Amino acid sequence: MDVAILTIGTELTRGELVNTNAAWLSTRLTELGFDVVEHAVVADDKPKIVRAFHRLASEVGVVIVTGGLGPTTDDLTAECAAEALGVALVRDEDSLARIRERFVSLKRTMSVSNEKQADFPAGATVLVNPIGTAPGFFITLGNARLFFTPGVPREMKKLFDEQIAPRIESHAKRDSYQIRIGTFGLPESVVGERLAGLEEANPGLVIGYRAHFPEVEVKVFVRAGDAAAAESRARSLADEVTRRLGDHAYGEGDGGLVAHVSELLVAKGLTLALAESCTGGLVGHLLTRPAGASRFLLAGAITYANEAKTEFANVPAELIAAHGAVSEPVARAMAEGIRARAKADFGVAITGVAGPGGGSPEKPVGTVFLAVASRSGTVVKPLLFVHDRPMIQTYAAYAALDLLRRTVAGLP
Amino acid sequence: MDVAILTIGTELTRGELVNTNAAWLSTRLTELGFDVVEHAVVADDKPKIVRAFHRLASEVGVVIVTGGLGPTTDDLTAECAAEALGVALVRDEDSLARIRERFVSLKRTMSVSNEKQADFPAGATVLVNPIGTAPGFFITLGNARLFFTPGVPREMKKLFDEQIAPRIESHAKRDSYQIRIGTFGLPESVVGERLAGLEEANPGLVIGYRAHFPEVEVKVFVRAGDAAAAESRARSLADEVTRRLGDHAYGEGDGGLVAHVSELLVAKGLTLALAESCTGGLVGHLLTRPAGASRFLLAGAITYANEAKTEFANVPAELIAAHGAVSEPVARAMAEGIRARAKADFGVAITGVAGPGGGSPEKPVGTVFLAVASRSGTVVKPLLFVHDRPMIQTYAAYAALDLLRRTVAGLP
Repeated sequence: MDVAILTIGTELTRGELVNTNAAWLSTRLTELGFDVVEHAVVADDKPKIVRAFHRLASEVGVVIVTGGLGPTTDDLTAECAAEALGVALVRDEDSLARIRERFVSLKRTMSVSNEKQADFPAGATVLVNPIGTAPGFFITLGNARLFFTPGVPREMKKLFDEQIAPRIESHAKRDSYQIRIGTFGLPESVVGERLAGLEEANPGLVIGYRAHFPEVEVKVFVRAGDAAAAESRARSLADEVTRRLGDHAYGEGDGGLVAHVSELLVAKGLTLALAESCTGGLVGHLLTRPAGASRFLLAGAITYANEAKTEFANVPAELIAAHGAVSEPVARAMAEGIRARAKADFGVAITGVAGPGGGSPEKPVGTVFLAVASRSGTVVKPLLFVHDRPMIQTYAAYAALDLLRRTVAGLP
Repeated sequence: MDVAILTIGTELTRGELVNTNAAWLSTRLTELGFDVVEHAVVADDKPKIVRAFHRLASEVGVVIVTGGLGPTTDDLTAECAAEALGVALVRDEDSLARIRERFVSLKRTMSVSNEKQADFPAGATVLVNPIGTAPGFFITLGNARLFFTPGVPREMKKLFDEQIAPRIESHAKRDSYQIRIGTFGLPESVVGERLAGLEEANPGLVIGYRAHFPEVEVKVFVRAGDAAAAESRARSLADEVTRRLGDHAYGEGDGGLVAHVSELLVAKGLTLALAESCTGGLVGHLLTRPAGASRFLLAGAITYANEAKTEFANVPAELIAAHGAVSEPVARAMAEGIRARAKADFGVAITGVAGPGGGSPEKPVGTVFLAVASRSGTVVKPLLFVHDRPMIQTYAAYAALDLLRRTVAGLP
């Protein structure tokens, strides 16, 4: 079934927000087996909103509408839905009571304007919102069902997963299965070349690529007679994909390289310490953003100044004077020094020129040295990644995690 | 003049990419004085694309279309534009020569499929793309002008700024001026209450809010007789806004609190060291993502394990045993210890329970202690920010930077 996503809000048409809601909903709907054929974003403008309702309802079977359910005068969604249906807005006393209770439990004062969040088009079904003041609802307009959620991402996601998906999933095609495989270290074009010919040889297979810099995720999407057949074919094709990508493919599922490396360390009971120069704490941030890093991460040092490399990671000042802070010997010393200081199984170090200044003919912007120290020795890897500062930092951080992955797993 | 933005690509309707192009274009167009009334995203589907061209051309004066200009079979944009106009595609030999030259200069082999990137609807004007293989173009459909750019963000931005904006800006309203004011520490609703009444008392003033968690930016947008009058009124209204927000308003312009604090330290010639526990390197990452942190940031320690607090920030183990790692005395000791170890003017420390585990009745998830140590003493601030892990980390990092700002600037 074709689905459209309609987002309402001048903050989007003015460019103040990026429409991450539409991307999230599209991913979920695609996984459920729907075809998302359009995203539309309209400003807080009554005629435009009503027109969008009518247009999309005539083109697809389900429309997911987010935004415009707040308490202020520019929140027009429910009013426009009523106008599109040609019915009145009706106050729902149950919803009003729940909104009141929510303000009491948050110890906040409810303003009169919040009452309108309990107004719905006559005949609409309310979708209770357990984590916010604005309830959702759904209506039938022509042959289409329109589902309305608040624009706040966490509320939208909860309403979609718990109340909208169960109401529509019977209309999805149930004949597909998708496996996502994380890769690092090959450009998207090379990943594509390695997988060339697979689609032609396997009808029903669609290989998708999601480059979430600097990782490339490969999606093996198979449509077959039924879901079980699709899963079994997807499984064997995923094995073939992994074989072709070799050790650049690190695993399946969510969380990417960060989750994979973290799980690897936890599974082996190994601990880690970091010494970051040009990445300035990014590796630490990536590892500690998900919960659970305390099971393996002992410490990190952001050794930005040369003196900090000596003070926190035992790098001899003479070594820096002799080779420069961005050098193979200093990266090695940082990794070994932080490992010793933190008494960790592994020490990871990054030193480089992230730019835009600080480059030289011998060490241009983008020169980075990575090192991983362990009981069995230290590996150092030079990188030259010519790009802008944030991309150099991000690439260096992931490349360091990949070097750690290879060291822990005993890969070349 | 009303403008719409149309993005073409199944990678967007399937949720594989977030539509950052539309947000960027909206910001630019709004700054130029246009009203962006709609974003639309359609899949790579010929009838849907043609229908979108006709619909948007009937509703607005300018449509910016991005995507679908690549060499592969699912790149349909030029073909659809020709169909909408009822004309043929015509090969442009100049463009073909430029594409060929580009491949030569990149030492890459041009494939036959790239030739179609030189095909345009008859009568279209080509927009030369100096940094990619796909040229843009523009056409007139009905009363609207449609401008086409590749979907690659850097190519799209360059074509828009250099070739599209100059062709449309005469149609923009040139009677407005906007000043953006950064704030931290007040919820968006409270910021709104403090500014209540200003719009009513000042016709032509629109106050906008952009909550980019955890910062709230206030936009003072003034429309007046001409641009100079608008700027002068915006200036005096921005002063009034700043007066009402007190020291929660830290300054104008780009870069937010991070840029403001960084500039403050550089202007005063002061240096900084960090000791981060629950934020795991996030403060370091925020400060080093823009260039220039080496002018003030000496070092940071990610003191995740208790032993690391002792080893890298001189926190006595007995102090941790007596009060717990998340406590006022430990935050104080971390800030003072890292300041001494790095020989910095300021030491900033963060210790807390980011969750989801690790909370207790006395110290629930969201309990954070911030500390700033300097020559004149140490200030410690307890926080309780009940939310999910990434939000607790982000709020704590910004609250620490705000405490540093206040300490450096001598504010309460």
